[in-house]
Amino acid sequence: MPDSAPIILLHRPQLGENIGSVARVMLNFGLTKLRLIAPRDGWPNPAAEPLSAGAFEAGVSVEVFDTAEAALADLQLVLAATARPRGMEKSVTDAMGGAEQIQDSPLRCGVLFGAENHGLPSELVGLADTIMTYPVNSDFASLNLAQAVGVFCASWGAVQGAVGRWEGEKAGVETPAPKEDLIRMFEHLEEELERAGYFYPPDKTPLMKTNIRNAFIRGNWTTQEVRTFRGAIKALALGRGKARVQRED
Amino acid sequence: MPDSAPIILLHRPQLGENIGSVARVMLNFGLTKLRLIAPRDGWPNPAAEPLSAGAFEAGVSVEVFDTAEAALADLQLVLAATARPRGMEKSVTDAMGGAEQIQDSPLRCGVLFGAENHGLPSELVGLADTIMTYPVNSDFASLNLAQAVGVFCASWGAVQGAVGRWEGEKAGVETPAPKEDLIRMFEHLEEELERAGYFYPPDKTPLMKTNIRNAFIRGNWTTQEVRTFRGAIKALALGRGKARVQRED
Repeated sequence: MPDSAPIILLHRPQLGENIGSVARVMLNFGLTKLRLIAPRDGWPNPAAEPLSAGAFEAGVSVEVFDTAEAALADLQLVLAATARPRGMEKSVTDAMGGAEQIQDSPLRCGVLFGAENHGLPSELVGLADTIMTYPVNSDFASLNLAQAVGVFCASWGAVQGAVGRWEGEKAGVETPAPKEDLIRMFEHLEEELERAGYFYPPDKTPLMKTNIRNAFIRGNWTTQEVRTFRGAIKALALGRGKARVQRED
Repeated sequence: MPDSAPIILLHRPQLGENIGSVARVMLNFGLTKLRLIAPRDGWPNPAAEPLSAGAFEAGVSVEVFDTAEAALADLQLVLAATARPRGMEKSVTDAMGGAEQIQDSPLRCGVLFGAENHGLPSELVGLADTIMTYPVNSDFASLNLAQAVGVFCASWGAVQGAVGRWEGEKAGVETPAPKEDLIRMFEHLEEELERAGYFYPPDKTPLMKTNIRNAFIRGNWTTQEVRTFRGAIKALALGRGKARVQRED
C-alpha cells in the first residue's frame, strides 16, 4: 500500500532557515517528503541544517524542481495554502479539512506553499484542486513559512491520530477509585476530625461533612491516591499526639 | 464579558528569537496575552523583535514574572504542554481538545510551555489541570518552542472559527450552474463535434456523448464557466473555417 502522507511543496522558498524549520515540523508529524521548486539559494543549503534539528538525516527527503509544473506532474490531488481565499471557484478548506481530505483520498497528494514574501501566484493556485486557508486574524495575517507548514502538519498528525505514539504509556487513562474506598476514607477523615473537635456547632456537622466530601469527590481520586491520603490522615492524627498508634487499616 | 482567549505562559524561555516567533504566531490566531517566567536573557530582549514581525506593537502584551507560582496565581484553569503524557493521574488532551476545553470554560485560562532544552518540570505539570500533548512522531519528537505554541494557537483559531475573518469574501461558496445551462452547452458542443466529424462510428456516438458529459458534469461548473466555454466552442468552430459566424446564442 502506498504511503498516504502528502508531499509538502515549497514554491520558490527564500531562506534556508525556513526550509530547515519546515523539515523539522514535518518530521514531528510523520511527513517525510519535501519538494523544493526553484529555491532561491539552491539546494543543498547549509543555512537549513541548524534549524532542521537533524530532520534531513532522520527521514525528510528533498527533491528539487525547476518548475512548479514539474514538481506537480505526478500528483493527483493538490492543495494550495493561501493566506486568504482567492475568490476562485474552487473548494476552500482549513487545515483539519485539508488533512482529512488527503487522509480520505487514495490519490497521490501534495500541499503547496508559496514563498515568504508573496505567497503563491494565482496561476499556481489555479492548478490546485482545493484552497487551504487558516482562520487567521485579518489584522495580523503574517505567518512565517514554517509556521504555516506547521499548522498543516499538526492537523495531519491530529487526523492520523498517533504517529507511532509513545507506546507503553497510555494517555489520559484515569481509574477513579470505587466509591467504597472513598467512603471509608471519608469516614476515617471525619472520625479524626471529630476527635480533633473540628465539627462545631453540632447541627452544622452534616452539612460540613457533605461539603468536604463534595470537594474530594470532584477530584476523581484513584485507589492509590485514596490510600496515600489515608496515610496522611493517620499521620496527622498521630501528629496531634493522640494515642492512635494502634489503629490499623 | 471577559475575553475568553487564554494566556500563553513560557517557563524559563531561553532564546529571544523564540519569544518573538511565539508572539507572531499568537497574534495570527488572535491571542494577545503572553507571560514570561524568568526569561533567561531578561525582558525586553532585542533578539525577539525581528522574528515577531511586529506582533508586540500590533497587540501582544508581555508580563514578566520571577516564579511560575506568581505567573499562575490568578489563573483558574491551566493546561501544561508536554512532549508526552507524564503518567500522572491528570486528564490528557491534544491541541484541539485543549482549545475546546478553554473555549467552553468561563474560567481564566492559561497554557504553559516549558523551556527549549528540557520542557516543563514535573512539579509545574503537577500544578496544571490538564496535560496537553500532540501526536508527534515518537522517533522525532523535537518541536521548536514556537512551533509547539503555534500548534495550540492554530487549534485555538480553528475552534474560534474566524478571528475577524476576511469579511466581504466568502470562502468556498460554489454556485454550480443549473443543469439547463449545462445541457445547452453539451448540445452546442455535440453539435459542433458532429459538424467536425468527431463522432465515429455512429453506433458508439451515444456512449461517447455520455462519457464527455460525465467528465464535464464532475467539474460543477458555474454559469459563468459555462458561458466562457461556450464562447470557446464557438471560437473553435469558427476557427475550423466553417461559416458559422451568424450563429448567436
